[in-house]
Amino acid sequence: MTRREPTALVTGFEPFDGEAVNPAQEIARALDGTTIAGHRVVGAVLPTEFTTALPALRRLLRVHSPMVVIALGLAGGRAEIAIERVAVNLIDARIADNAGAQPVDERVLKRGPNAYFSTLPVKAMLERLLAAGIPAALSQSAGTFVCNQVFYGLSHAIARRKAVRGGFVHVPYLPVQAARNPGAPSLPLQTMIEAIRLCIDTALTVRRDAHFAAGTTH
Amino acid sequence: MTRREPTALVTGFEPFDGEAVNPAQEIARALDGTTIAGHRVVGAVLPTEFTTALPALRRLLRVHSPMVVIALGLAGGRAEIAIERVAVNLIDARIADNAGAQPVDERVLKRGPNAYFSTLPVKAMLERLLAAGIPAALSQSAGTFVCNQVFYGLSHAIARRKAVRGGFVHVPYLPVQAARNPGAPSLPLQTMIEAIRLCIDTALTVRRDAHFAAGTTH
Amino acid sequence: MTRREPTALVTGFEPFDGEAVNPAQEIARALDGTTIAGHRVVGAVLPTEFTTALPALRRLLRVHSPMVVIALGLAGGRAEIAIERVAVNLIDARIADNAGAQPVDERVLKRGPNAYFSTLPVKAMLERLLAAGIPAALSQSAGTFVCNQVFYGLSHAIARRKAVRGGFVHVPYLPVQAARNPGAPSLPLQTMIEAIRLCIDTALTVRRDAHFAAGTTH
Amino acid sequence: MTRREPTALVTGFEPFDGEAVNPAQEIARALDGTTIAGHRVVGAVLPTEFTTALPALRRLLRVHSPMVVIALGLAGGRAEIAIERVAVNLIDARIADNAGAQPVDERVLKRGPNAYFSTLPVKAMLERLLAAGIPAALSQSAGTFVCNQVFYGLSHAIARRKAVRGGFVHVPYLPVQAARNPGAPSLPLQTMIEAIRLCIDTALTVRRDAHFAAGTTH
Repeated sequence: MTRREPTALVTGFEPFDGEAVNPAQEIARALDGTTIAGHRVVGAVLPTEFTTALPALRRLLRVHSPMVVIALGLAGGRAEIAIERVAVNLIDARIADNAGAQPVDERVLKRGPNAYFSTLPVKAMLERLLAAGIPAALSQSAGTFVCNQVFYGLSHAIARRKAVRGGFVHVPYLPVQAARNPGAPSLPLQTMIEAIRLCIDTALTVRRDAHFAAGTTH
Repeated sequence: MTRREPTALVTGFEPFDGEAVNPAQEIARALDGTTIAGHRVVGAVLPTEFTTALPALRRLLRVHSPMVVIALGLAGGRAEIAIERVAVNLIDARIADNAGAQPVDERVLKRGPNAYFSTLPVKAMLERLLAAGIPAALSQSAGTFVCNQVFYGLSHAIARRKAVRGGFVHVPYLPVQAARNPGAPSLPLQTMIEAIRLCIDTALTVRRDAHFAAGTTH
Repeated sequence: MTRREPTALVTGFEPFDGEAVNPAQEIARALDGTTIAGHRVVGAVLPTEFTTALPALRRLLRVHSPMVVIALGLAGGRAEIAIERVAVNLIDARIADNAGAQPVDERVLKRGPNAYFSTLPVKAMLERLLAAGIPAALSQSAGTFVCNQVFYGLSHAIARRKAVRGGFVHVPYLPVQAARNPGAPSLPLQTMIEAIRLCIDTALTVRRDAHFAAGTTH
Repeated sequence: MTRREPTALVTGFEPFDGEAVNPAQEIARALDGTTIAGHRVVGAVLPTEFTTALPALRRLLRVHSPMVVIALGLAGGRAEIAIERVAVNLIDARIADNAGAQPVDERVLKRGPNAYFSTLPVKAMLERLLAAGIPAALSQSAGTFVCNQVFYGLSHAIARRKAVRGGFVHVPYLPVQAARNPGAPSLPLQTMIEAIRLCIDTALTVRRDAHFAAGTTH
């Protein structure tokens, strides 16, 4: 592989909050090395730690210069693939990260703007997933934990590179996790891998985002 | 095939309420003709109609003399395989059935008891599904629609045949259905087929039901 | 007060599962001594204990000979007044009661029928509450804890007294409880007191229950 | 009343989406003319229309020069008082507003920043409500409808006036609305009025916001 081969980057996270697995990690691993729309997919796993996650992501951006970046995280309790729209410059950790840190009301970047919008074609991605029969929705908040931090840091890192598209997608529990969380929804790994493959393909091939209502009233 | 070959019966329902598919039907079809614990599985689909569902079920019982019967129905909105415990002698249709009938506050059987308990080993089944990483729970009510009617009618039909075990299991939406019902949970067909296969196997092989708390406070 | 003064009995439960209050108890206390449709209301509080709750209820039935009995219990997590339809002959305690007992898969009464239906005019009650702008629904299961035990025991005790109507109603958290259970719905005490007053009045004055669909599909 | 009397402004919205009432409007009306922490409360109702809501709010700001502004909106389906943290520069109307307009993927202000954070002491307010036994939570998204538009426009209008604190609070259905939306949570009007009174008082009297974790993982 040479540096000039076009790539797409998909990242997951290590398991956190006592879970043994993380579907985001599994999806990144499964897609690593595959080819989508002529781009080699680099699948990597970030530590679920406030101090090391973003440096690891920045290193991946430097090494691989991807045209599309989709960072993935687990949203236990959600029923569908949640395509995030907004990264906010705020960290407020409800639980400790994997290193035991629990920052409260800090900025991701001291001098960064309050928020970034995803530069992925989020509605075209939503349309594509639903057309494939995969439960999906847009989400207006990626929370205030490491997921949002990475989403914000990624957005900041690519803010000036207009040719690069990047954003964040939250995924539900795996069925095996839902089996230990009574009443929790889930999606099978294969469906989630296919969903992210479709998202990457859409981000690589669709020029203009789709235009239809997909907001929330509150 | 001769009549004396031991069988297990699994029934599904035709799609209803405007849905194009019904996972219960798909599971019954997928298991039809397979062999589980030395028993040939008969998979059949019942009409989602108050007047014809039970006669169709009784015919299947007569023709196949199954040792285990699991009737399946769709519970759109549930996240897990729901093993039903109680069939009640009550019909109160919130929506019309596929023939346009909507009976309100009628008995399934005029002179039947108020309720039957499932004679399946419901807790052993629950334990088996959770051990296999499949989201599952016991449910104290199968509702008051055709599902409950069939569950009650089945229980009544086998009430005197102590060697026969029978009951009802509700299943969630397929992902393709959840994609059209925003926020609704789902399970993939393969997971549901495997779940019901495990349920049948458990009902055919486990003599005494398991003993652990799995009730609800309300 | 003489024995012949007609009465209505409403019971609540002592707080359980670590909660400091129980709205069911508060409602029973608030209605105690009031008069509804010419009947003196006896409000009493039952212990949340499998061994003592039913004996206490039977004593109240003996002493007061009420024409209407509504037993109340807390359903933490529900958003509305839940009028129960079915009491089942099953105890399966997910948590320990206030005496530390946690019976699993026992019968309420060894030789009782599998279930009793509420003899309250449940649909007229539902109609009345909704017309008064109070969130309400019918429920097909009162669970398998002390609430269901008392509902079943009450139903059994009055099964032969055709003039007596009795049943069970579950109520949501108080706002002060919801404040400690993130995301949990609640109703204010005054609304719940008014709801149960309307239920008692309906049970004392409406001869024939209303007839409209209010069941569930699963 | 002279211009120099210190004021606090609380706004509600007209009913929308076919509802007959809007608790946000009722709360604003109930608090109008009261005095909180030495400030006269101006309660006003905004049209639920994209083109007229913000101009009406700006007029109120000009006329009353309030020290604290809390805009209120209805969040049907939420169980608690939701104190919003982030206003985003995005409109994506899932339903039409009261004038029939349904803008999709537009900016609130063409040249505004991507987002504003509430300048209310949101955690001190949360702490105060919970201490008073009122269900409450922080929310990371006010949606993409007129509520978010007003929240964003308000934040922009007061962005340079450091002495003025302003933000948005979403409130649940009234019980009478929940009675028509099966399963929906609600809070009584009196509880909501008291909640907003406490919020205004906190915003007028607490200098430094509280510091504790109240974020979400996704």
